[in-house]
Amino acid sequence: MSERIHASYWLETGDDPARTAEVIAGEQSSGTFVALPNETPELKARSGARVERLDVLDTVASPSLPGPYPATGRYTRCALELSWPIENIGPSLPMLMATVAGNLFELRGVSGLRLTDLQLPPSFAERYPGPAFGIAGTRQLTGVASGPLIGTIIKPSVGLSAQETAEQVRQLVEGGIDFIKDDELQADGAYCPFEDRVRAVMRVVNDAAGRTGRKAMVAFNLTGDLDEMRRRHDFVLAEGGTCVMVCLNSVGILGLHELRRHAQLPIHAHRAGWGYLTRCPQLGWDYAPWQKIWRLAGADHLHVNGLRNKFSEPDDSVIAAARAVLAPVMPGVPMAAMPVFSSGQTGLQAADTHAAIGCTDLIHTVGGGIFGHPDGVAAGVEALRASWDAAVAGVPLALQAERSPALRSALGFWR
Amino acid sequence: MSERIHASYWLETGDDPARTAEVIAGEQSSGTFVALPNETPELKARSGARVERLDVLDTVASPSLPGPYPATGRYTRCALELSWPIENIGPSLPMLMATVAGNLFELRGVSGLRLTDLQLPPSFAERYPGPAFGIAGTRQLTGVASGPLIGTIIKPSVGLSAQETAEQVRQLVEGGIDFIKDDELQADGAYCPFEDRVRAVMRVVNDAAGRTGRKAMVAFNLTGDLDEMRRRHDFVLAEGGTCVMVCLNSVGILGLHELRRHAQLPIHAHRAGWGYLTRCPQLGWDYAPWQKIWRLAGADHLHVNGLRNKFSEPDDSVIAAARAVLAPVMPGVPMAAMPVFSSGQTGLQAADTHAAIGCTDLIHTVGGGIFGHPDGVAAGVEALRASWDAAVAGVPLALQAERSPALRSALGFWR
Repeated sequence: MSERIHASYWLETGDDPARTAEVIAGEQSSGTFVALPNETPELKARSGARVERLDVLDTVASPSLPGPYPATGRYTRCALELSWPIENIGPSLPMLMATVAGNLFELRGVSGLRLTDLQLPPSFAERYPGPAFGIAGTRQLTGVASGPLIGTIIKPSVGLSAQETAEQVRQLVEGGIDFIKDDELQADGAYCPFEDRVRAVMRVVNDAAGRTGRKAMVAFNLTGDLDEMRRRHDFVLAEGGTCVMVCLNSVGILGLHELRRHAQLPIHAHRAGWGYLTRCPQLGWDYAPWQKIWRLAGADHLHVNGLRNKFSEPDDSVIAAARAVLAPVMPGVPMAAMPVFSSGQTGLQAADTHAAIGCTDLIHTVGGGIFGHPDGVAAGVEALRASWDAAVAGVPLALQAERSPALRSALGFWR
Repeated sequence: MSERIHASYWLETGDDPARTAEVIAGEQSSGTFVALPNETPELKARSGARVERLDVLDTVASPSLPGPYPATGRYTRCALELSWPIENIGPSLPMLMATVAGNLFELRGVSGLRLTDLQLPPSFAERYPGPAFGIAGTRQLTGVASGPLIGTIIKPSVGLSAQETAEQVRQLVEGGIDFIKDDELQADGAYCPFEDRVRAVMRVVNDAAGRTGRKAMVAFNLTGDLDEMRRRHDFVLAEGGTCVMVCLNSVGILGLHELRRHAQLPIHAHRAGWGYLTRCPQLGWDYAPWQKIWRLAGADHLHVNGLRNKFSEPDDSVIAAARAVLAPVMPGVPMAAMPVFSSGQTGLQAADTHAAIGCTDLIHTVGGGIFGHPDGVAAGVEALRASWDAAVAGVPLALQAERSPALRSALGFWR
């Protein structure tokens, strides 16, 4: 039997749901708005998309998205699953995008449409490489055999010089941090040129590694045009760096794919711009299908926000995102990436985060919760680790604090 | 004075608008959620984003997007303009994306945010090439010195063999069409491999050109991985083809940029997926800023939907999009691309389309309005041209029909 691509949607329509489902399936395969004489039954059987499932969820009186609908006063919400024969496009991520997320969101009968899941056939895993390092490779490079990578982000996001950045990195590596990243706004600005920053930072990181035997991983943001990204990657590699970062929505699938083909370092994938793809609940993308595409293309670390974050995303969405990043990309094909938790994080989220995902294969980036520690950065890092030790052992933080002075002090200011 | 990047937004917030504007500006430059000791006044003056304008438009009682807002019951809508020093990122389109459309849509105080305009400094036009062919180059290659390019799309979208596609193209070129495009769902499927299709189609097109001296432009959809796109482009060129098509959201900015660097043919840019970026009025992107980015990266033709189209987009949005594509990308830098009108089009939209944009520098793709003509495809194409002649001359269609039998017949079935 031929392979098929399956995509699931949340659909809202003021029309008959079965008819709307068929319109979407037709429009995204062999059909169009009008009947065509040469859309023969054979052609349709060969190339048509199929409605695999259509479950009515509920009805509402008003449409979620504005449009020229007939005034039915009744909009049906459904779970819709479509499938396509792989022969239409082959195992191509760019063509997958045009097929499962192309010209369907603006169809007239559609007052809401959101891509909720994607099940891809094995040929995609044969064609695309997935993460080169993933969880195991990241642990090996950082020397963190168990527990989460304790990380942080250089702040202010932009405006520091290369030397000032390196000075901040010095405090962090002396404090025993595992992971540091550039902000997504910082790549190669005039006040902090990429090569100057990498050189200054890696001098600090390499010195510390020479003393301690453990090298902190720094994700340098190389987001840029393709030649720039390759050049910057090579520079990081030559300076002894162990990670590069890229903004996915800035470079697109081909940008990540080409970087992955070139790279000899893990790719820390930032989702800046994710908000415009997801924040309207009746439109766009869930994280589960979206992250799958980027993992196939080669993302090693993927941002998932954090519990009780400073943004508008609720915790259940954060948890679903992190679980999706850790789940196999398809049956028998792990291609696991490391979820990156960030935004308003401290050790107070460790236990809930651990409970939600059931493992410590993650990067936990913490800013104020480390830098604000009254006993300094090292104590901040130590307090974070103690929180995670407690989470894994199932020990309440207050009890753990009796064994860890750093955690005890941290509990006085973590909010 | 240093160059600055300006971005305009439609903003809705349940918080004090001035404070929310400052939070957005801070978050997208040197600030973060908490005060930082090293965000000095000097650093902020150097690298901070600036609120240039904040005009309150109106207030509403409910938030447009769900979020954890304080229950104020009052949400203010504003026009917001921010600016950034070019030194933060340099003239980099990928970094521009992360800056003007990064982690701001999901900020807590934001119950709605939409990017409405983008004013870029000259250095972007020095760094990026813009369209290689644009309007003049497309006219030259097609031999259409004036008036719109009359075009169509191969249908069914997917499922035809290479030979069946070529047969459809034969009818069209014999009918005198200027422009034909693949559907965005058709690239290199098993039933219609790219090279087979190009070879079969170009045999027909080249034969006709040999007889008539005028070569129809066929936009072959080469959307795929980067090496594939380059290979396919070279194949089209070798077979005498004059255009390639790519789905922008499928390949991303780096995909288009690299294709532009490689290409010796005009790039027909498809916006499949545009719906998920734009259909929620309180989130995402207007077309004006979006198309600017792709034109800088090299798009020669850009889809803008069509008047009275079969999708949900209203006419004023279509007109605004087309005008944006024709307007200079920045003062003194035309980089004009050709707007492509499609979806439910016939000659009935010619006069209104012409009135709205004031020129004929466009591609008008018509399906049923050509194929359904009772006297055949040639009469369909002729009727379209007659409609445009009438539009330009300011002659009513009914009057023009007295001089054009093909138009007279067309008026009997165009709806």
